[in-house]
Amino acid sequence: MVIVSCCRRRATERLCARIPIPVLAVGTFAVLAVASPEGHRWTAGGTGQPAEGRPAAGIARSYEAQAKRILDAALAGNDAYRKLEELCDDIGNRFSGSQNLDRAIVWAVETLRRDGHENVHSETVMVPKWVRGRESLELIEPQRQPVPMLGLGGSVGTPPEGITAPVVAVFDEQELERLGKQVRGKIVLFDHPMSSENEQHGAGYGSAVRFRGAGARLAAKYGAVAALVRSVTTRSLQSPHTGGMGYGDAEAKIPAAAISTEFAAKITRLQKRGIPVTVTLKMEAKLHDEPVESANVIAELRGRERPEEVVVVGGHIDSWDVGQGAHDDGAGCVTAMEALKVLRKLDLRPRRTIRVVLWTNEENGLAGGRTYAKDHEDELPRHVAAIEADSGGFRPLGFGITLADETAQKIATEQLREILTLLEPIGATAVQVGHGGADIGPLRPAGVPCLGLSVDMTHYFDVHHTHADTLDKVDPQDLSKDVAAMAVVAYVLADMPGRLGQPVE
Amino acid sequence: MVIVSCCRRRATERLCARIPIPVLAVGTFAVLAVASPEGHRWTAGGTGQPAEGRPAAGIARSYEAQAKRILDAALAGNDAYRKLEELCDDIGNRFSGSQNLDRAIVWAVETLRRDGHENVHSETVMVPKWVRGRESLELIEPQRQPVPMLGLGGSVGTPPEGITAPVVAVFDEQELERLGKQVRGKIVLFDHPMSSENEQHGAGYGSAVRFRGAGARLAAKYGAVAALVRSVTTRSLQSPHTGGMGYGDAEAKIPAAAISTEFAAKITRLQKRGIPVTVTLKMEAKLHDEPVESANVIAELRGRERPEEVVVVGGHIDSWDVGQGAHDDGAGCVTAMEALKVLRKLDLRPRRTIRVVLWTNEENGLAGGRTYAKDHEDELPRHVAAIEADSGGFRPLGFGITLADETAQKIATEQLREILTLLEPIGATAVQVGHGGADIGPLRPAGVPCLGLSVDMTHYFDVHHTHADTLDKVDPQDLSKDVAAMAVVAYVLADMPGRLGQPVE
Repeated sequence: MVIVSCCRRRATERLCARIPIPVLAVGTFAVLAVASPEGHRWTAGGTGQPAEGRPAAGIARSYEAQAKRILDAALAGNDAYRKLEELCDDIGNRFSGSQNLDRAIVWAVETLRRDGHENVHSETVMVPKWVRGRESLELIEPQRQPVPMLGLGGSVGTPPEGITAPVVAVFDEQELERLGKQVRGKIVLFDHPMSSENEQHGAGYGSAVRFRGAGARLAAKYGAVAALVRSVTTRSLQSPHTGGMGYGDAEAKIPAAAISTEFAAKITRLQKRGIPVTVTLKMEAKLHDEPVESANVIAELRGRERPEEVVVVGGHIDSWDVGQGAHDDGAGCVTAMEALKVLRKLDLRPRRTIRVVLWTNEENGLAGGRTYAKDHEDELPRHVAAIEADSGGFRPLGFGITLADETAQKIATEQLREILTLLEPIGATAVQVGHGGADIGPLRPAGVPCLGLSVDMTHYFDVHHTHADTLDKVDPQDLSKDVAAMAVVAYVLADMPGRLGQPVE
Repeated sequence: MVIVSCCRRRATERLCARIPIPVLAVGTFAVLAVASPEGHRWTAGGTGQPAEGRPAAGIARSYEAQAKRILDAALAGNDAYRKLEELCDDIGNRFSGSQNLDRAIVWAVETLRRDGHENVHSETVMVPKWVRGRESLELIEPQRQPVPMLGLGGSVGTPPEGITAPVVAVFDEQELERLGKQVRGKIVLFDHPMSSENEQHGAGYGSAVRFRGAGARLAAKYGAVAALVRSVTTRSLQSPHTGGMGYGDAEAKIPAAAISTEFAAKITRLQKRGIPVTVTLKMEAKLHDEPVESANVIAELRGRERPEEVVVVGGHIDSWDVGQGAHDDGAGCVTAMEALKVLRKLDLRPRRTIRVVLWTNEENGLAGGRTYAKDHEDELPRHVAAIEADSGGFRPLGFGITLADETAQKIATEQLREILTLLEPIGATAVQVGHGGADIGPLRPAGVPCLGLSVDMTHYFDVHHTHADTLDKVDPQDLSKDVAAMAVVAYVLADMPGRLGQPVE
C-alpha cells in the first residue's frame, strides 16, 4: 500500500516539530541481518563477451551514447559531496529515535524537492528507540586504566554502580564451551580478530561480527554477567566500533559492549601470562518500551512509458550514534540522490520510473526496509530492480546481484555483466553474485532483483560504526564515480525494453 | 664526570621508594629539539664498492663471520618483544615525573642485571614535572559536541571554568599574520596537514610539527587566548597526538592543545562556509615549580682491549603520558638492551666497551641526554660513537649518521656504508646523512659520531604520541631485525681497529 502524498508530507512536518519524550523501556530489539560477504562469489567482469545462450546481448551497445553522457556529466562535477557535507557537518550522526535523524529526514525531503524531483515525500516508519546514555569501562586489575569502549546497540544497561568482575578472554564459541561454567559470574571477552584477507571485498567481517551479534547470548548460557567483544576491524587507533546485538533466546539479558582491539589484545596477553584482569563496566543503555516515529524518504524521476514500473535506488538515512555516518551510509544516500539529479539535468527520462528511497533504521532494526516492503506490497511485482549503496563511498568496483529465483539469477547476472561494460571508463565492471543490501533484502522474496553497489572496502572497516566515520574519509572523486555508476545502471535497468532477469521475448 | 656506582644504585633505590609530592608550578619548559627529517640526505647503500680515497675498505670483509653469527642469533629468537611486553603491559606509559617512569627505571636496572651485564646502574637526572590533569574541548557552536583532544606538554592550564571563544582556523604563519589583530580574544587553530610525501622516511613531519611547538607563541602575538593544533599525523581515527610545545619569548602564555585531524578539518570546512565555530577549552595542566628526580639507566659490555673507549647504544625510557610508549620509545630501549644481550650470549667481547644508555626525559626536556653529556664530559673524547634507536620498532632500513666535522662526516659515511653491507641479509643497508637522535644530540658538539637506527616510518606517525602507541603495533620480526642491525653495527664500531670518521693510519 502506498501512503498518499498528503499523509507523507504530514509525517515530515510532524518530525520537524517533534520533541522526543523518553519512556521507560524493556522490549525486543531486532538485530540487523547482514549478508555475510563470505557467501559472495566474485566473477571477472568487463569482458563484454556474450555468454553462451545469453539472451540480452546488445543491451550495452544500445546504451553506449547515454552511458557516456551520464559518466561525463557525473564526473565533470556533481553535488554529492556538498550534500554529504551538509548531512555530516550540519546534522551529524542520525540514530533511530534521535532528533538528528528527524532533521536529516526533513533535510532530505527539502533537498530532493529543491532538486526538482517528482513525488517527493516521506513515509512513516515506526522504529525502536535505544539510548546509549553514559557508559564506561575501566580496567581495575592489574592497573587502573580507562578502556575505549562503545556499548552495543540493543544491550541492556548495568546497575548504576556498574558490574565489577574478572574477565575471561576466549577466541570463539568452542573455547567458551570448553570453559563452560568456569565463566559463571565473570565477564567474557570475545577476542576474535577480524581477518584482513581479501580486505578489498570486506571478506573478513562475517566471521568476526557474529560475536558482536551473539556474544551476550553465548556468554549468558554459561552464567557470565557481561560480554565484551573485540571491535570488528583490522585497523585501530584505540577506536571502538559499535553495532547491533541481539539476545534471541538468551537465558539472561547481560550487558554487551565493544572494546578497542588494543585492549582486547592486552587482556589476552595478560591472561596468557596468568595475570588476573578485572574490570568495571557501567552502561546506562536502555531500549524504550514503545517504538517511535521515523520515515523513509522518497523521490522519483517518473518513467515516460511505464511509470508504474519502478527501479529503486537508495541508501539508509540513519546511522549509528557516533561519528558522522559519512561512509555508513551518508555516502549511499547522496549517491542515490545525486544519480537521480544527474539524469534529470541531462533530461534523460527512462521508460520506467526511478525511485530514490532513503531507508530509516537500517542499523538497528531494518524497520525502514521492512515497512517499505509491506506498504508497497501491491506494487512489488512492478519493481524491476532495487539497488542499494551501503558499503561506503569508496571507489566503485561494480555491482552485486541477488535474485530469489535461480534461473532468473543466472539470466540477470549475465545481463548485468554486459551492462557493466558501460562502466569500463571508471573500472566498475565486476559482478558480485550474492550481494545486495540490507534494506532491500525484504524485497527479494517478492522476486525483486536486488543489486548492491560494490566498492573498494579496504578501509571501510577502519571507520565503520565509529567516531571516525567522518566526511574527511570520503574522497570526492570516488564519490563522483559512485554517482556515475549508480546513474548508468539505474538508467539502463529503467529504460531497457525487457526486465532484468527475464529472457528477451 | 662519571657518577660512582654506589650513588647510581642509590638513585634507583630512591626512585623505588619515592612518593611524588605535587608542588605548585610556574617554570621554564624545554622543548624537544627534533632534527627535521627533511634535512636528511638519503644515499643508496649496500654497494660495497670502495669510494675514491676511502681508507676503510675491508672493514666489512673482516667482520663477515661475526656479523653472520650475530644476525643468525638475533633472528633465531631473542627476548626483545618479551621485554617490551613487560614494559608496556606491566608498567605502561612513562612520563617524566611519573611513578610509572620510576618503575620503568627500576625494571630496566633489574632486567639489565639479570641479563648479566657489567656496570649496571642508574644516574640521577633532574627532570621537569608537567601534569596534564583533567582536560576537555567542547564544540559549542554550531552544535555541542566533545572534541578528541590532548593538551600539549608544557602548556599552561585554563581557568577552572575554561576558555570559551570563537575559533579562527589558519593554514600557517602567513595566514595568521594577514589576519593579525582579528584573532584578538579568539582561539587560533593551526590546521596544517602533515604531508604524506616520502612517508617511509618521515619526511612530512618537520613542516607540520612547528605549529605544535610554536603555535601558542605565534597566536599570543596577536592577542589570541588559546591555540589549537591539528594533530601531526597522516592517518587518524579521531586520535589526538600530544607532544611538546614552548613559549619562548611569548607575549603571553596561552593554553595549547592538539585536536583530532577530523575536527580540525571540520572546523576549517565550517569556516569556509561562513558558519561560526565556538568552543570551550578546559585544561588543568600545570608545570611544577621544581624539577624532580629521574635517572638514565646504564649497562655495559666492557671492552677487552680499550675498555675506556665507548660505543653508546640506546633509546629513551620515558614516553608521553598516553598509550604504552611502545614504538616511542620502548622499542628503542629493548632494541639496545637486547643487542647487548645477543653479543654477551655469543661471547663476542669487542675491543672497546659497548654501553647501553636508556635516557630519561627525551619527550619534554631532553634532560637525560643533556645530563649524560655533562656528567660524562671527561670521557666524551673516548666515545667513539653513539647510536640511538628512536624512530619506532619497525623494519630497519639502515642507519643515519651525523658528525660535527665535515671531513670526518665524509670518512665516517663511507665507512658506515661499507659496514652496512653486513646487513644486506635484513635489507638495512641505507645510509641517511644527517640523522642521529635527540638524546645523543648533546654529544655531537664534543665530536662524537652520532648514529640513528633508520626504520620504515610509514606507520610511525599513525600512533606517535597517542593512546594508540601500543604493543600490538610492534611486529616481533621487525623488532628482531632491529636488534640484529643494532648489535652488528655496535659490535663492528666497538671492535674495528680504527675509529669511525678517522682515516686509517
